[in-house]
Amino acid sequence: MTNGEVRMTSRPIGVFDSGIGGLTVVRAIRSRLPSESISYFGDTARLPYGTKSAETITRFAFEDADFLVRRGVKVIVVACHSAASVALEKLCARLAVPVLGVIEPGARALVAATRTGRVAVIGTNATINSGAYERAIRALARDIEIVAKPTPLFVCLAEEGWLDNEVALAVAQRYLSGLADEGVDAVLLGCTHFPLLSGVIAKVLGPAVRLVDPGSATAASVERLLREQGLLAQGAPATSGTMRCYLSDLVPNFQLVATRFLGEPLAEVLKADLANDQ
Amino acid sequence: MTNGEVRMTSRPIGVFDSGIGGLTVVRAIRSRLPSESISYFGDTARLPYGTKSAETITRFAFEDADFLVRRGVKVIVVACHSAASVALEKLCARLAVPVLGVIEPGARALVAATRTGRVAVIGTNATINSGAYERAIRALARDIEIVAKPTPLFVCLAEEGWLDNEVALAVAQRYLSGLADEGVDAVLLGCTHFPLLSGVIAKVLGPAVRLVDPGSATAASVERLLREQGLLAQGAPATSGTMRCYLSDLVPNFQLVATRFLGEPLAEVLKADLANDQ
Repeated sequence: MTNGEVRMTSRPIGVFDSGIGGLTVVRAIRSRLPSESISYFGDTARLPYGTKSAETITRFAFEDADFLVRRGVKVIVVACHSAASVALEKLCARLAVPVLGVIEPGARALVAATRTGRVAVIGTNATINSGAYERAIRALARDIEIVAKPTPLFVCLAEEGWLDNEVALAVAQRYLSGLADEGVDAVLLGCTHFPLLSGVIAKVLGPAVRLVDPGSATAASVERLLREQGLLAQGAPATSGTMRCYLSDLVPNFQLVATRFLGEPLAEVLKADLANDQ
Repeated sequence: MTNGEVRMTSRPIGVFDSGIGGLTVVRAIRSRLPSESISYFGDTARLPYGTKSAETITRFAFEDADFLVRRGVKVIVVACHSAASVALEKLCARLAVPVLGVIEPGARALVAATRTGRVAVIGTNATINSGAYERAIRALARDIEIVAKPTPLFVCLAEEGWLDNEVALAVAQRYLSGLADEGVDAVLLGCTHFPLLSGVIAKVLGPAVRLVDPGSATAASVERLLREQGLLAQGAPATSGTMRCYLSDLVPNFQLVATRFLGEPLAEVLKADLANDQ
Protein backbone atom coordinates (compact mmCIF):
# COMPACT_ATOMS: atom_id res chain seq x y z
CA MET A 1 0.00 0.00 0.00
CA THR A 2 1.44 3.37 -0.96
CA ASN A 3 1.54 6.45 1.21
CA GLY A 4 -1.02 8.08 -1.05
CA GLU A 5 -3.51 5.31 -0.37
CA VAL A 6 -2.90 5.46 3.38
CA ARG A 7 -3.59 9.16 3.34
CA MET A 8 -6.77 8.62 1.29
CA THR A 9 -8.26 6.16 3.80
CA SER A 10 -7.63 8.52 6.70
CA ARG A 11 -9.53 11.35 5.03
CA PRO A 12 -12.97 12.23 6.44
CA ILE A 13 -16.34 11.23 5.04
CA GLY A 14 -18.13 14.38 3.83
CA VAL A 15 -21.82 14.73 4.65
CA PHE A 16 -24.00 17.67 3.67
CA ASP A 17 -27.56 18.75 4.28
CA SER A 18 -29.65 21.91 3.90
CA GLY A 19 -29.40 22.30 7.66
CA ILE A 20 -28.87 20.38 10.85
CA GLY A 21 -31.27 17.48 10.23
CA GLY A 22 -28.60 15.55 8.32
CA LEU A 23 -26.92 14.88 11.65
CA THR A 24 -29.38 11.94 11.98
CA VAL A 25 -27.46 10.35 9.09
CA VAL A 26 -24.14 11.24 10.74
CA ARG A 27 -25.34 9.57 13.92
CA ALA A 28 -26.05 6.35 12.01
CA ILE A 29 -22.65 6.46 10.24
CA ARG A 30 -20.76 7.06 13.50
CA SER A 31 -22.61 4.26 15.20
CA ARG A 32 -21.71 1.84 12.38
CA LEU A 33 -18.23 3.15 11.54
CA PRO A 34 -16.78 4.68 14.73
CA SER A 35 -13.23 4.85 13.35
CA GLU A 36 -14.25 7.15 10.49
CA SER A 37 -13.80 10.91 10.73
CA ILE A 38 -16.64 13.06 9.42
CA SER A 39 -16.78 16.58 7.99
CA TYR A 40 -20.34 17.87 7.97
CA PHE A 41 -21.69 20.90 6.11
CA GLY A 42 -25.12 22.32 6.99
CA ASP A 43 -26.41 25.14 4.76
CA THR A 44 -28.28 26.82 7.60
CA ALA A 45 -28.10 30.25 5.90
CA ARG A 46 -30.21 29.07 2.94
CA LEU A 47 -32.40 26.32 4.41
CA PRO A 48 -34.87 24.89 3.70
CA TYR A 49 -34.24 23.38 0.26
CA GLY A 50 -37.51 21.45 -0.05
CA THR A 51 -39.62 24.47 -1.02
CA LYS A 52 -37.28 25.66 -3.77
CA SER A 53 -36.87 24.91 -7.48
CA ALA A 54 -34.83 21.95 -8.73
CA GLU A 55 -32.49 24.39 -10.50
CA THR A 56 -31.70 26.31 -7.32
CA ILE A 57 -31.40 23.17 -5.16
CA THR A 58 -28.96 21.72 -7.70
CA ARG A 59 -26.83 24.88 -7.64
CA PHE A 60 -26.77 24.84 -3.83
CA ALA A 61 -25.91 21.10 -3.77
CA PHE A 62 -22.86 21.68 -6.01
CA GLU A 63 -21.68 24.56 -3.83
CA ASP A 64 -22.09 22.43 -0.70
CA ALA A 65 -20.30 19.41 -2.21
CA ASP A 66 -17.47 21.55 -3.61
CA PHE A 67 -16.96 23.04 -0.15
CA LEU A 68 -16.44 19.54 1.27
CA VAL A 69 -14.25 18.40 -1.64
CA ARG A 70 -11.96 21.37 -0.93
CA ARG A 71 -11.68 20.02 2.63
CA GLY A 72 -10.29 16.75 1.31
CA VAL A 73 -13.15 14.34 1.93
CA LYS A 74 -12.86 10.83 0.41
CA VAL A 75 -16.59 10.43 -0.30
CA ILE A 76 -19.69 12.65 -0.27
CA VAL A 77 -22.94 11.60 1.39
CA VAL A 78 -25.96 13.69 0.39
CA ALA A 79 -28.03 13.53 3.59
CA CYS A 80 -30.63 16.01 2.34
CA HIS A 81 -33.47 14.14 0.60
CA SER A 82 -34.44 17.20 -1.46
CA ALA A 83 -30.87 17.64 -2.75
CA ALA A 84 -30.41 13.91 -3.37
CA SER A 85 -33.76 13.75 -5.18
CA VAL A 86 -32.97 16.43 -7.73
CA ALA A 87 -29.16 16.54 -7.96
CA LEU A 88 -27.62 13.15 -7.11
CA GLU A 89 -27.00 12.01 -10.69
CA LYS A 90 -25.41 15.30 -11.68
CA LEU A 91 -23.20 15.27 -8.56
CA CYS A 92 -22.10 11.67 -9.31
CA ALA A 93 -21.26 12.62 -12.88
CA ARG A 94 -19.22 15.71 -12.10
CA LEU A 95 -17.46 15.25 -8.74
CA ALA A 96 -14.01 13.69 -8.42
CA VAL A 97 -14.98 11.63 -5.34
CA PRO A 98 -17.69 8.95 -5.00
CA VAL A 99 -21.15 10.32 -4.13
CA LEU A 100 -23.91 8.51 -2.29
CA GLY A 101 -27.41 9.70 -1.37
CA VAL A 102 -30.19 8.63 0.95
CA ILE A 103 -32.61 7.70 -1.85
CA GLU A 104 -31.43 4.27 -3.00
CA PRO A 105 -30.67 2.96 0.52
CA GLY A 106 -34.03 4.28 1.70
CA ALA A 107 -35.88 2.65 -1.20
CA ARG A 108 -34.15 -0.66 -0.49
CA ALA A 109 -35.11 -0.54 3.21
CA LEU A 110 -38.71 0.32 2.30
CA VAL A 111 -39.05 -2.56 -0.14
CA ALA A 112 -37.63 -4.93 2.50
CA ALA A 113 -40.16 -3.65 5.07
CA THR A 114 -43.42 -4.13 3.17
CA ARG A 115 -45.50 -7.31 3.24
CA THR A 116 -48.55 -6.04 1.33
CA GLY A 117 -46.61 -4.44 -1.53
CA ARG A 118 -48.31 -1.10 -0.84
CA VAL A 119 -45.98 1.58 0.47
CA ALA A 120 -45.91 5.33 0.93
CA VAL A 121 -43.19 7.97 0.72
CA ILE A 122 -43.55 11.29 2.52
CA GLY A 123 -41.19 14.24 2.07
CA THR A 124 -40.83 17.87 1.05
CA ASN A 125 -42.44 19.25 -2.10
CA ALA A 126 -39.10 19.09 -3.95
CA THR A 127 -38.49 15.45 -2.97
CA ILE A 128 -41.98 14.23 -3.87
CA ASN A 129 -42.31 16.29 -7.06
CA SER A 130 -38.97 14.93 -8.34
CA GLY A 131 -40.31 11.36 -8.38
CA ALA A 132 -36.84 10.13 -7.37
CA TYR A 133 -38.04 7.77 -4.65
CA GLU A 134 -40.68 6.27 -6.92
CA ARG A 135 -38.06 5.56 -9.60
CA ALA A 136 -35.68 4.03 -7.05
CA ILE A 137 -38.42 1.83 -5.56
CA ARG A 138 -39.68 0.64 -8.97
CA ALA A 139 -36.12 -0.22 -10.00
CA LEU A 140 -36.07 -2.68 -7.07
CA ALA A 141 -39.68 -3.94 -7.23
CA ARG A 142 -41.57 -3.18 -10.40
CA ASP A 143 -45.08 -4.07 -9.17
CA ILE A 144 -45.09 -2.27 -5.86
CA GLU A 145 -47.88 0.26 -5.28
CA ILE A 146 -46.59 3.64 -4.12
CA VAL A 147 -48.39 6.60 -2.59
CA ALA A 148 -46.13 9.67 -2.67
CA LYS A 149 -47.25 12.58 -0.53
CA PRO A 150 -45.64 15.94 0.26
CA THR A 151 -45.90 16.76 3.98
CA PRO A 152 -43.98 20.05 4.21
CA LEU A 153 -45.40 21.22 7.54
CA PHE A 154 -43.61 18.38 9.34
CA VAL A 155 -40.37 20.31 8.70
CA CYS A 156 -41.76 23.37 10.50
CA LEU A 157 -43.02 21.29 13.43
CA ALA A 158 -39.60 19.70 13.90
CA GLU A 159 -37.90 23.11 13.73
CA GLU A 160 -40.34 24.51 16.31
CA GLY A 161 -39.85 21.46 18.55
CA TRP A 162 -43.58 20.66 18.47
CA LEU A 163 -43.11 16.90 18.23
CA ASP A 164 -46.09 15.45 20.08
CA ASN A 165 -48.55 18.20 20.97
CA GLU A 166 -52.10 18.67 19.65
CA VAL A 167 -50.88 20.66 16.63
CA ALA A 168 -48.45 17.90 15.58
CA LEU A 169 -51.27 15.38 15.89
CA ALA A 170 -53.66 17.54 13.84
CA VAL A 171 -51.06 17.96 11.07
CA ALA A 172 -50.28 14.23 11.02
CA GLN A 173 -53.98 13.38 10.84
CA ARG A 174 -54.58 15.80 7.98
CA TYR A 175 -51.65 14.45 5.95
CA LEU A 176 -51.75 10.75 6.82
CA SER A 177 -55.14 9.53 7.98
CA GLY A 178 -55.96 8.22 4.50
CA LEU A 179 -52.79 6.10 4.17
CA ALA A 180 -53.73 3.26 6.54
CA ASP A 181 -57.11 2.97 4.80
CA GLU A 182 -55.30 2.48 1.49
CA GLY A 183 -53.61 -0.68 2.82
CA VAL A 184 -50.16 0.88 3.06
CA ASP A 185 -48.01 -1.08 5.53
CA ALA A 186 -44.65 0.72 5.25
CA VAL A 187 -43.93 4.46 5.10
CA LEU A 188 -40.58 5.96 4.17
CA LEU A 189 -39.65 9.05 6.20
CA GLY A 190 -38.21 10.96 3.24
CA CYS A 191 -36.81 13.99 5.06
CA THR A 192 -34.15 14.19 7.75
CA HIS A 193 -36.55 16.00 10.08
CA PHE A 194 -39.29 13.40 10.05
CA PRO A 195 -37.77 10.79 12.42
CA LEU A 196 -38.25 13.36 15.21
CA LEU A 197 -41.99 13.12 14.54
CA SER A 198 -42.15 9.33 14.34
CA GLY A 199 -44.16 9.11 17.58
CA VAL A 200 -47.07 11.17 16.32
CA ILE A 201 -46.84 9.69 12.82
CA ALA A 202 -47.05 6.17 14.29
CA LYS A 203 -50.03 7.21 16.41
CA VAL A 204 -51.99 8.22 13.30
CA LEU A 205 -50.92 5.27 11.13
CA GLY A 206 -51.38 2.60 13.77
CA PRO A 207 -49.15 -0.32 14.85
CA ALA A 208 -49.50 -2.29 11.60
CA VAL A 209 -47.58 0.33 9.59
CA ARG A 210 -43.77 0.27 9.73
CA LEU A 211 -41.84 3.56 9.56
CA VAL A 212 -38.61 3.39 7.58
CA ASP A 213 -35.83 5.90 8.34
CA PRO A 214 -33.14 5.73 5.59
CA GLY A 215 -30.40 6.78 8.04
CA SER A 216 -29.16 3.34 9.06
CA ALA A 217 -29.59 1.92 5.54
CA THR A 218 -27.50 4.82 4.25
CA ALA A 219 -24.79 4.11 6.83
CA ALA A 220 -24.70 0.48 5.63
CA SER A 221 -24.32 1.69 2.03
CA VAL A 222 -21.48 4.01 3.06
CA GLU A 223 -19.66 1.08 4.68
CA ARG A 224 -20.13 -1.09 1.57
CA LEU A 225 -18.89 1.63 -0.77
CA LEU A 226 -15.81 2.39 1.36
CA ARG A 227 -14.97 -1.32 1.62
CA GLU A 228 -15.38 -1.90 -2.15
CA GLN A 229 -13.15 1.04 -2.96
CA GLY A 230 -10.52 0.24 -0.30
CA LEU A 231 -11.30 3.49 1.50
CA LEU A 232 -12.19 2.28 5.01
CA ALA A 233 -10.23 4.00 7.79
CA GLN A 234 -7.28 1.84 8.77
CA GLY A 235 -7.11 2.61 12.52
CA ALA A 236 -7.72 -0.02 15.17
CA PRO A 237 -11.47 -0.62 15.65
CA ALA A 238 -11.39 1.17 19.00
CA THR A 239 -9.90 4.37 17.50
CA SER A 240 -12.52 7.13 17.43
CA GLY A 241 -12.84 9.25 14.33
CA THR A 242 -13.13 13.02 14.66
CA MET A 243 -16.22 15.07 13.83
CA ARG A 244 -16.07 18.57 12.40
CA CYS A 245 -19.24 20.57 11.65
CA TYR A 246 -19.40 23.55 9.27
CA LEU A 247 -22.52 25.71 9.22
CA SER A 248 -23.21 28.59 6.80
CA ASP A 249 -25.12 30.40 9.56
CA LEU A 250 -24.75 29.97 13.29
CA VAL A 251 -28.52 30.05 13.71
CA PRO A 252 -29.96 30.67 17.19
CA ASN A 253 -30.16 27.46 19.25
CA PHE A 254 -28.20 25.42 16.70
CA GLN A 255 -26.44 23.56 19.50
CA LEU A 256 -29.78 22.59 21.08
CA VAL A 257 -31.26 21.47 17.76
CA ALA A 258 -28.07 19.63 16.78
CA THR A 259 -28.11 17.67 20.02
CA ARG A 260 -31.70 16.64 19.26
CA PHE A 261 -30.60 15.18 15.90
CA LEU A 262 -27.10 13.89 16.71
CA GLY A 263 -27.84 12.53 20.18
CA GLU A 264 -24.89 14.44 21.63
CA PRO A 265 -23.63 18.05 21.52
CA LEU A 266 -21.44 19.18 18.60
CA ALA A 267 -17.81 19.42 19.71
CA GLU A 268 -16.27 21.45 16.88
CA VAL A 269 -18.44 23.93 14.97
CA LEU A 270 -17.08 26.37 12.38
CA LYS A 271 -18.84 29.11 10.44
CA ALA A 272 -18.53 28.46 6.70
CA ASP A 273 -18.51 31.31 4.20
CA LEU A 274 -19.47 29.70 0.89
CA ALA A 275 -19.23 32.94 -1.09
CA ASN A 276 -15.55 33.46 -0.23
CA ASP A 277 -14.37 29.85 -0.09
CA GLN A 278 -12.08 28.86 -2.95
CA MET B 1 -36.38 71.85 -12.18
CA THR B 2 -33.32 70.29 -13.79
CA ASN B 3 -33.30 67.21 -15.96
CA GLY B 4 -31.50 65.30 -13.20
CA GLU B 5 -34.36 65.97 -10.79
CA VAL B 6 -36.96 64.95 -13.35
CA ARG B 7 -35.19 61.68 -13.94
CA MET B 8 -34.94 61.08 -10.17
CA THR B 9 -38.70 61.39 -9.59
CA SER B 10 -39.48 58.96 -12.40
CA ARG B 11 -37.27 56.27 -10.91
CA PRO B 12 -39.01 53.29 -9.27
CA ILE B 13 -39.55 52.70 -5.57
CA GLY B 14 -37.47 49.67 -4.53
CA VAL B 15 -39.12 47.15 -2.21
CA PHE B 16 -37.47 43.98 -0.92
CA ASP B 17 -38.50 41.02 1.18
CA SER B 18 -37.18 37.57 2.01
CA GLY B 19 -39.80 36.19 -0.36
CA ILE B 20 -43.15 36.96 -1.89
CA GLY B 21 -45.00 38.12 1.24
CA GLY B 22 -43.71 41.67 0.81
CA LEU B 23 -46.12 42.04 -2.10
CA THR B 24 -48.75 42.89 0.55
CA VAL B 25 -46.74 46.09 1.15
CA VAL B 26 -46.48 46.66 -2.63
CA ARG B 27 -50.24 46.31 -2.87
CA ALA B 28 -50.73 49.04 -0.26
CA ILE B 29 -48.20 51.34 -1.99
CA ARG B 30 -49.79 50.85 -5.42
CA SER B 31 -53.22 51.50 -4.02
CA ARG B 32 -52.05 54.76 -2.41
CA LEU B 33 -49.57 55.89 -5.09
CA PRO B 34 -50.76 54.47 -8.43
CA SER B 35 -48.44 56.69 -10.50
CA GLU B 36 -45.30 55.28 -8.88
CA SER B 37 -43.31 52.51 -10.55
CA ILE B 38 -42.05 49.71 -8.31
CA SER B 39 -39.08 47.36 -8.54
CA TYR B 40 -39.52 44.43 -6.16
CA PHE B 41 -36.88 41.94 -5.08
CA GLY B 42 -37.89 38.71 -3.31
CA ASP B 43 -35.05 36.51 -2.02
CA THR B 44 -36.95 33.29 -2.63
CA ALA B 45 -33.72 31.27 -2.94
CA ARG B 46 -32.74 31.97 0.67
CA LEU B 47 -36.07 32.47 2.44
CA PRO B 48 -37.09 32.48 5.24
CA TYR B 49 -35.03 35.09 7.08
CA GLY B 50 -36.87 34.93 10.41
CA THR B 51 -35.18 31.74 11.63
CA LYS B 52 -31.64 32.96 10.92
CA SER B 53 -29.03 34.94 12.85
CA ALA B 54 -29.00 38.74 12.89
CA GLU B 55 -25.56 38.68 11.25
CA THR B 56 -26.73 36.59 8.28
CA ILE B 57 -30.01 38.51 7.89
CA THR B 58 -28.04 41.77 7.83
CA ARG B 59 -25.69 40.43 5.14
CA PHE B 60 -28.66 39.29 3.04
CA ALA B 61 -30.44 42.64 3.52
CA PHE B 62 -27.41 44.56 2.18
CA GLU B 63 -27.17 42.26 -0.84
CA ASP B 64 -30.89 42.70 -1.54
CA ALA B 65 -30.76 46.49 -1.15
CA ASP B 66 -27.61 46.80 -3.28
CA PHE B 67 -29.33 44.82 -6.03
CA LEU B 68 -32.16 47.37 -6.09
CA VAL B 69 -29.81 50.37 -5.84
CA ARG B 70 -28.01 49.06 -8.95
CA ARG B 71 -31.42 49.14 -10.68
CA GLY B 72 -31.71 52.87 -10.01
CA VAL B 73 -34.42 52.99 -7.36
CA LYS B 74 -35.04 56.35 -5.65
CA VAL B 75 -35.91 54.89 -2.23
CA ILE B 76 -35.73 51.48 -0.54
CA VAL B 77 -38.64 50.01 1.41
CA VAL B 78 -37.70 47.07 3.65
CA ALA B 79 -40.94 45.07 3.57
CA CYS B 80 -39.46 42.11 5.49
CA HIS B 81 -40.03 42.60 9.22
CA SER B 82 -37.09 40.34 10.14
CA ALA B 83 -34.70 42.33 7.92
CA ALA B 84 -36.10 45.68 9.07
CA SER B 85 -35.85 44.57 12.73
CA VAL B 86 -32.16 43.72 12.63
CA ALA B 87 -30.70 45.78 9.76
CA LEU B 88 -32.69 48.98 9.18
CA GLU B 89 -30.35 51.36 11.01
CA LYS B 90 -27.28 49.96 9.27
CA LEU B 91 -29.01 50.18 5.87
CA CYS B 92 -30.02 53.80 6.54
CA ALA B 93 -26.47 54.68 7.53
CA ARG B 94 -24.75 53.12 4.55
CA LEU B 95 -27.02 53.35 1.50
CA ALA B 96 -27.01 56.33 -0.85
CA VAL B 97 -30.83 56.43 -1.13
CA PRO B 98 -33.40 56.95 1.65
CA VAL B 99 -34.47 53.74 3.43
CA LEU B 100 -37.76 53.07 5.15
CA GLY B 101 -38.95 49.95 7.01
CA VAL B 102 -42.23 48.54 8.23
CA ILE B 103 -41.33 48.84 11.93
CA GLU B 104 -41.90 52.52 12.73
CA PRO B 105 -45.11 52.84 10.64
CA GLY B 106 -46.39 49.60 12.21
CA ALA B 107 -45.61 50.81 15.74
CA ARG B 108 -47.41 54.10 15.05
CA ALA B 109 -50.52 52.32 13.75
CA LEU B 110 -50.52 49.98 16.78
CA VAL B 111 -50.28 52.83 19.28
CA ALA B 112 -53.15 54.59 17.49
CA ALA B 113 -55.28 51.43 17.66
CA THR B 114 -55.12 50.62 21.38
CA ARG B 115 -57.56 51.95 23.98
CA THR B 116 -56.36 49.93 26.99
CA GLY B 117 -52.65 50.62 26.50
CA ARG B 118 -51.92 46.89 26.39
CA VAL B 119 -50.75 45.64 23.02
CA ALA B 120 -49.06 42.61 21.51
CA VAL B 121 -46.60 42.11 18.69
CA ILE B 122 -46.31 38.75 16.93
CA GLY B 123 -43.61 37.87 14.41
CA THR B 124 -40.73 35.57 13.54
CA ASN B 125 -38.06 34.62 16.05
CA ALA B 126 -35.64 37.14 14.51
CA THR B 127 -38.17 39.99 14.66
CA ILE B 128 -39.26 39.34 18.25
CA ASN B 129 -35.77 38.57 19.58
CA SER B 130 -34.44 41.84 18.10
CA GLY B 131 -36.75 43.92 20.32
CA ALA B 132 -37.08 46.43 17.46
CA TYR B 133 -40.87 46.74 17.66
CA GLU B 134 -40.77 47.21 21.44
CA ARG B 135 -38.22 50.03 21.08
CA ALA B 136 -40.26 51.70 18.32
CA ILE B 137 -43.50 51.46 20.34
CA ARG B 138 -41.90 52.80 23.54
CA ALA B 139 -40.41 55.71 21.62
CA LEU B 140 -43.99 56.71 20.76
CA ALA B 141 -45.73 55.81 24.05
CA ARG B 142 -43.45 55.20 27.00
CA ASP B 143 -45.99 53.59 29.34
CA ILE B 144 -47.61 51.13 26.98
CA GLU B 145 -47.59 47.47 28.03
CA ILE B 146 -46.26 45.17 25.33
CA VAL B 147 -46.44 41.41 24.96
CA ALA B 148 -43.99 40.26 22.27
CA LYS B 149 -44.44 36.70 21.05
CA PRO B 150 -42.71 34.71 18.30
CA THR B 151 -45.25 32.75 16.22
CA PRO B 152 -43.04 31.14 13.55
CA LEU B 153 -45.44 28.40 12.49
CA PHE B 154 -47.80 31.03 11.02
CA VAL B 155 -45.21 31.48 8.24
CA CYS B 156 -45.41 27.77 7.36
CA LEU B 157 -49.21 27.77 7.42
CA ALA B 158 -49.34 30.72 5.01
CA GLU B 159 -46.80 29.04 2.69
CA GLU B 160 -48.84 25.80 2.76
CA GLY B 161 -52.06 27.74 2.13
CA TRP B 162 -53.65 26.36 5.32
CA LEU B 163 -55.35 29.61 6.26
CA ASP B 164 -58.51 28.55 8.05
CA ASN B 165 -58.52 24.80 8.61
CA GLU B 166 -58.39 22.93 11.93
CA VAL B 167 -54.57 23.00 11.98
CA ALA B 168 -54.46 26.79 11.53
CA LEU B 169 -56.98 27.12 14.36
CA ALA B 170 -54.97 24.80 16.66
CA VAL B 171 -51.77 26.77 16.00
CA ALA B 172 -53.49 30.11 16.61
CA GLN B 173 -55.00 28.83 19.85
CA ARG B 174 -51.66 27.53 21.11
CA TYR B 175 -49.87 30.82 20.37
CA LEU B 176 -52.57 33.37 21.13
CA SER B 177 -55.23 32.11 23.53
CA GLY B 178 -53.47 33.79 26.48
CA LEU B 179 -53.37 37.25 24.86
CA ALA B 180 -57.04 38.21 25.22
CA ASP B 181 -56.92 37.15 28.89
CA GLU B 182 -54.04 39.56 29.43
CA GLY B 183 -56.24 42.52 28.43
CA VAL B 184 -54.48 43.11 25.10
CA ASP B 185 -56.78 45.00 22.70
CA ALA B 186 -54.49 45.50 19.67
CA VAL B 187 -52.13 43.04 17.99
CA LEU B 188 -49.53 43.98 15.41
CA LEU B 189 -49.13 41.44 12.60
CA GLY B 190 -45.33 41.66 12.48
CA CYS B 191 -44.67 39.49 9.45
CA THR B 192 -45.79 39.92 5.84
CA HIS B 193 -47.39 36.46 5.88
CA PHE B 194 -49.65 37.02 8.85
CA PRO B 195 -52.42 39.12 7.20
CA LEU B 196 -53.34 35.97 5.26
CA LEU B 197 -54.17 34.34 8.61
CA SER B 198 -56.10 37.27 10.05
CA GLY B 199 -59.38 35.32 9.92
CA VAL B 200 -58.24 32.54 12.20
CA ILE B 201 -56.24 34.95 14.41
CA ALA B 202 -59.36 37.10 14.89
CA LYS B 203 -61.40 34.01 15.71
CA VAL B 204 -59.07 33.15 18.62
CA LEU B 205 -58.61 36.71 19.90
CA GLY B 206 -62.27 37.71 19.69
CA PRO B 207 -63.97 40.82 18.27
CA ALA B 208 -62.63 43.23 20.94
CA VAL B 209 -59.04 42.87 19.71
CA ARG B 210 -57.95 44.91 16.69
CA LEU B 211 -55.43 43.47 14.24
CA VAL B 212 -52.93 45.97 12.85
CA ASP B 213 -51.28 45.29 9.48
CA PRO B 214 -48.36 47.74 8.93
CA GLY B 215 -48.81 47.61 5.14
CA SER B 216 -51.05 50.65 4.72
CA ALA B 217 -49.22 52.64 7.40
CA THR B 218 -45.98 51.92 5.56
CA ALA B 219 -47.51 53.12 2.28
CA ALA B 220 -48.49 56.38 4.01
CA SER B 221 -44.91 56.79 5.28
CA VAL B 222 -43.56 56.18 1.78
CA GLU B 223 -45.81 58.92 0.41
CA ARG B 224 -44.75 61.36 3.15
CA LEU B 225 -41.05 60.65 2.60
CA LEU B 226 -41.30 61.05 -1.19
CA ARG B 227 -43.22 64.31 -0.81
CA GLU B 228 -40.75 65.74 1.74
CA GLN B 229 -37.81 64.89 -0.49
CA GLY B 230 -39.47 66.08 -3.71
CA LEU B 231 -39.34 62.59 -5.14
CA LEU B 232 -43.02 61.91 -5.95
CA ALA B 233 -43.62 60.74 -9.51
CA GLN B 234 -44.60 63.72 -11.67
CA GLY B 235 -47.04 61.99 -14.05
CA ALA B 236 -50.70 62.89 -14.21
CA PRO B 237 -52.62 61.15 -11.39
CA ALA B 238 -54.21 58.76 -13.86
CA THR B 239 -50.84 57.53 -15.18
CA SER B 240 -50.15 54.00 -13.98
CA GLY B 241 -46.70 53.16 -12.70
CA THR B 242 -45.02 49.97 -13.87
CA MET B 243 -44.28 46.96 -11.67
CA ARG B 244 -41.21 44.77 -12.13
CA CYS B 245 -40.57 41.75 -9.87
CA TYR B 246 -37.16 40.09 -9.42
CA LEU B 247 -36.95 36.74 -7.63
CA SER B 248 -33.73 34.90 -6.70
CA ASP B 249 -35.52 31.58 -7.29
CA LEU B 250 -38.53 30.93 -9.48
CA VAL B 251 -40.04 28.69 -6.79
CA PRO B 252 -42.87 26.34 -7.76
CA ASN B 253 -46.27 28.07 -7.69
CA PHE B 254 -44.74 31.52 -7.19
CA GLN B 255 -47.35 33.03 -9.48
CA LEU B 256 -50.17 31.47 -7.43
CA VAL B 257 -48.69 32.62 -4.12
CA ALA B 258 -47.88 36.08 -5.51
CA THR B 259 -51.48 36.54 -6.61
CA ARG B 260 -52.61 35.67 -3.08
CA PHE B 261 -50.41 38.46 -1.63
CA LEU B 262 -50.64 41.09 -4.39
CA GLY B 263 -54.29 40.64 -5.26
CA GLU B 264 -53.45 40.29 -8.96
CA PRO B 265 -50.99 38.20 -11.02
CA LEU B 266 -47.42 39.45 -11.51
CA ALA B 267 -46.98 40.86 -15.00
CA GLU B 268 -43.18 41.01 -15.31
CA VAL B 269 -41.06 38.51 -13.38
CA LEU B 270 -37.29 38.17 -13.79
CA LYS B 271 -34.88 35.68 -12.23
CA ALA B 272 -32.22 37.57 -10.24
CA ASP B 273 -28.72 36.18 -9.80
CA LEU B 274 -27.35 37.96 -6.74
CA ALA B 275 -23.98 36.19 -6.87
CA ASN B 276 -23.16 37.51 -10.35
CA ASP B 277 -24.84 40.91 -10.23
CA GLN B 278 -22.42 43.83 -10.10
